[in-house]
Amino acid sequence: MKQLKERILRDGKSLDGGILKVDSFINHQMDPILMKSVAVEFVKRFAHLPITKIVTIEASGIAPAIMVGYLLELPVVFVKKAKPKTMENMAVAQVYSFTKDRTYDVCVSKEFLKEGDKVLFIDDFLANGNAALGIIELAKEAKAQILGMGFIIEKAFQEGGNILRQKTDIQIESLARIKTLALNQVTFED
Amino acid sequence: MKQLKERILRDGKSLDGGILKVDSFINHQMDPILMKSVAVEFVKRFAHLPITKIVTIEASGIAPAIMVGYLLELPVVFVKKAKPKTMENMAVAQVYSFTKDRTYDVCVSKEFLKEGDKVLFIDDFLANGNAALGIIELAKEAKAQILGMGFIIEKAFQEGGNILRQKTDIQIESLARIKTLALNQVTFED
Repeated sequence: MKQLKERILRDGKSLDGGILKVDSFINHQMDPILMKSVAVEFVKRFAHLPITKIVTIEASGIAPAIMVGYLLELPVVFVKKAKPKTMENMAVAQVYSFTKDRTYDVCVSKEFLKEGDKVLFIDDFLANGNAALGIIELAKEAKAQILGMGFIIEKAFQEGGNILRQKTDIQIESLARIKTLALNQVTFED
Repeated sequence: MKQLKERILRDGKSLDGGILKVDSFINHQMDPILMKSVAVEFVKRFAHLPITKIVTIEASGIAPAIMVGYLLELPVVFVKKAKPKTMENMAVAQVYSFTKDRTYDVCVSKEFLKEGDKVLFIDDFLANGNAALGIIELAKEAKAQILGMGFIIEKAFQEGGNILRQKTDIQIESLARIKTLALNQVTFED
């Protein structure tokens, strides 16, 4: 997605350790016009699938997911990263975060993710794939089916994309695939 | 806002202890069409103000905030509830949560909330007002000015609304003001 790649080159900051900061337009301050364009691109790539529900994970996935849900007129469920006090009947899965070096629970009410749901999962980043694998496990526990997973940015130099594309038959799409952040320079695939 | 009140009566669940569950359409599963309508209503109430930035707090505020930002073509910043590893130069304030019975930090990068910013704050709930007061403190530390605060639902039987309306000159708007949840029945103001 050309507009997105140009924005990453202009406003993204590549730091040591393979970190790409996009917090001025995606995951702290957000550009809602860009989020709408990102959602349009996801719709183009996934609209052929019989999706019934958009699922994302708090907090950075919510903005693009709600825009996709708005365009497709579908409910949007955000998976939570901590168990709420007032939620019962939950599906839970564990995710190991390299960034934070800890394991956390992801959970969702089985009232909102259940048998018969055909899910498009939307998130901001695909890197090592741990969060995505946690979502796949969560959906399995809730007996929902994931048809597609869409990511705004994929760190293609990490293994998440390969794992998801080889080990599942889910359609995986990333709108900007980063080949390398070597020397703190962003280089895209293709 | 009539449509919102009707939806609360239809799909909200009032539980013991003054709890109103709206997690089937606002804060776990979200109805993006309703979020857009909610945003239109916020725009109508706040569009006379010279707003330059929408601010919200993760996670449930993000959906209505991104819709308001989209309609007004303004950047949206979400305040974080935990200090991220890769963020420096932050403003931090403390919030006591009655629901969770603990104090947590809210924080925002001073790069995205700063002097000259004229803020509209958007969130899903106004109850005791602690989160809103934390945001006001945060904005003060960042030298930004809050012009308006818009909430989807106000528990008018709690003190937050009175505190904000009496102690600040910020325009406070709530789209559904709940008078009482007594006997687990939702009754609105007016």
